[in-house]
Amino acid sequence: MALSSGAELAQYQLCFETYGELNVNKSNAILICHALNASHHVAGFYQGQENSEGWWNNMIGPGKPVDTNRFFVIGVNNLGSCFGSTGPMHVNPANGRIYGADFPVVTVEDWVNAQARLLDRLGIAQLAAVMGGSLGGMQALSWSLQYPQRVKHAVVIASAPNLTAENIAFNEVARRAIVTDPDFHGGHFYEHGVLPKRGLRIARMLGHITYLSDDVMNSKFGRNLQEGDAYRFSTQDIEFQIESYLRYQGDKFSHYFDANTYLLITRALDYFDPAKPFQGDLVKALASASAQFLLVSFTTDWRFAPSRSREMVQALVANKRSLSYAEIDAPHGHDAFLLDDPRYLRVVRSYFENIHLTDQTT
Amino acid sequence: MALSSGAELAQYQLCFETYGELNVNKSNAILICHALNASHHVAGFYQGQENSEGWWNNMIGPGKPVDTNRFFVIGVNNLGSCFGSTGPMHVNPANGRIYGADFPVVTVEDWVNAQARLLDRLGIAQLAAVMGGSLGGMQALSWSLQYPQRVKHAVVIASAPNLTAENIAFNEVARRAIVTDPDFHGGHFYEHGVLPKRGLRIARMLGHITYLSDDVMNSKFGRNLQEGDAYRFSTQDIEFQIESYLRYQGDKFSHYFDANTYLLITRALDYFDPAKPFQGDLVKALASASAQFLLVSFTTDWRFAPSRSREMVQALVANKRSLSYAEIDAPHGHDAFLLDDPRYLRVVRSYFENIHLTDQTT
Repeated sequence: MALSSGAELAQYQLCFETYGELNVNKSNAILICHALNASHHVAGFYQGQENSEGWWNNMIGPGKPVDTNRFFVIGVNNLGSCFGSTGPMHVNPANGRIYGADFPVVTVEDWVNAQARLLDRLGIAQLAAVMGGSLGGMQALSWSLQYPQRVKHAVVIASAPNLTAENIAFNEVARRAIVTDPDFHGGHFYEHGVLPKRGLRIARMLGHITYLSDDVMNSKFGRNLQEGDAYRFSTQDIEFQIESYLRYQGDKFSHYFDANTYLLITRALDYFDPAKPFQGDLVKALASASAQFLLVSFTTDWRFAPSRSREMVQALVANKRSLSYAEIDAPHGHDAFLLDDPRYLRVVRSYFENIHLTDQTT
Repeated sequence: MALSSGAELAQYQLCFETYGELNVNKSNAILICHALNASHHVAGFYQGQENSEGWWNNMIGPGKPVDTNRFFVIGVNNLGSCFGSTGPMHVNPANGRIYGADFPVVTVEDWVNAQARLLDRLGIAQLAAVMGGSLGGMQALSWSLQYPQRVKHAVVIASAPNLTAENIAFNEVARRAIVTDPDFHGGHFYEHGVLPKRGLRIARMLGHITYLSDDVMNSKFGRNLQEGDAYRFSTQDIEFQIESYLRYQGDKFSHYFDANTYLLITRALDYFDPAKPFQGDLVKALASASAQFLLVSFTTDWRFAPSRSREMVQALVANKRSLSYAEIDAPHGHDAFLLDDPRYLRVVRSYFENIHLTDQTT
């Protein structure tokens, strides 16, 4: 497969899961696109495995907003990720070595192309909907531009038409933490039997701050101390509960997430910018989209703020496209797209009920 | 000197500079308190030294808002800092080794106590004003509580009555980057002839993001590429200008700032919370203040947001204290307190003109 960078992948595998049944017309397929830290395992549990809940299990399943009694849902792990699809920890067939830092840079557009090939294999000409949050929402938007005829509905949640300088800056700090970890070894740490855990911990701690809102951090942790009511007066020990939370999250992440994948996925975020070939004109960029859209944003999401969703809404309106937009007043910041806000889930449920009803009557 | 932590410093030195002349009544002294990355060198230049401008040289000097033709201005470097006053890179007289991580934790209250002793030496019973921005504003506030009779005016700029969980979280990520740098050696890197530059770079890059606003980052850097108009498709090379800017700032910082000082000063920020002994009741906490106050905040400052200044304003009003408050509509984020916003400088100028006039007539 040819990639946006000009590089080629001679061979690759995509991991995917499906839920529900494809109908006879093959008109009920929903593709779910994941963000940084997720996989093809979007719903349900693996039999006999603890803590194996799909990452969007509150959204997708029998009787849920994306109802697998009605829809054939496809979860797919993206190229370059570390949950089964071909990525930097796999062997490069060109030289028999683990790819590591030699895995080619992949873009949102490349992911969408690979997903489209998967649909070819499954015999699905057109998606009832493509759906994602955050970076997953970028993929849903890109689907509507790269394959307009193959997408009836695009559901773009807590997303943006590109990253701001501040977002790129946060990604860059995380990447520098990983790359300058002595255990990174230029991205070929696999051969040295080590993992750049220090860098991954920092990257994840920083990420977590930006996924939460100031408000939710204050209400969950505030200035609560880890132990007792008196300061211990230490610069290195844990003093505040928020420190304990971040260290725990960082540590957990550093054991299971691949450092090269972190670099690749944050770069895909940085690079996504469908208006770039149009000198930044998003109205022109979205002119090729023919899908109907549902966009959702969350008021306290400062990483992918409502104003960024409104840019997409305005560009779609300027193109006279059919769309629904919900701005949910939720306290949870960017993380809200994964949480159980009833108004949010109701919006998605009713949108998918309409998709289903329309499909029944046509 | 006894410290808040219970530790004691057997001996210490404070570096300070003065500007202007102390009047006969010793009634025209202004103490300037610095934030994380600054020193006693608040105004002017050192003869024959390039790039030696004082950090608040736009604010303080002859004819400037804090006019050294009228006032005797004192800049002081705090304990634990790395610009001359006793700190972690100095020798611990108890054992002849460099303090490093053994330097005791210092608090805003400790700094104020040390500053008060300096004023004793200078024979200054009462300050015309104590003034600072950010962490410096916390010191100005703390002066009004620890030594109410010694402060006529407290000027508290871009500050807060304590840090939010999010602010503590950012500090913690920076500290972890430093502490987990293999060159940190538990804080005793001096003996190993190395500096934990990797950690300091990450800390500074992250700091810089939080000192700027999203808006100013977008207008200064946006999504501009470092070279040309086409992506280079690299995860490790610099692609966007914002990356180049942050790496440069981080690198510069890592050469001159002490890692243990970074830990100490961010901890002083975390710990400051004058309402803590009053179960979080800021009104009760500020009841002991008798100074008149000027508070200033900046609309795009998300690290020390206007809402935090308003908490102090409300607590002072509840205590029937005399105060002025200016909320400056500035695009520059937290950094605005160091910049040349004319409305901001005008507010400070007119406040200090009033201090001067009142002093002349009493």
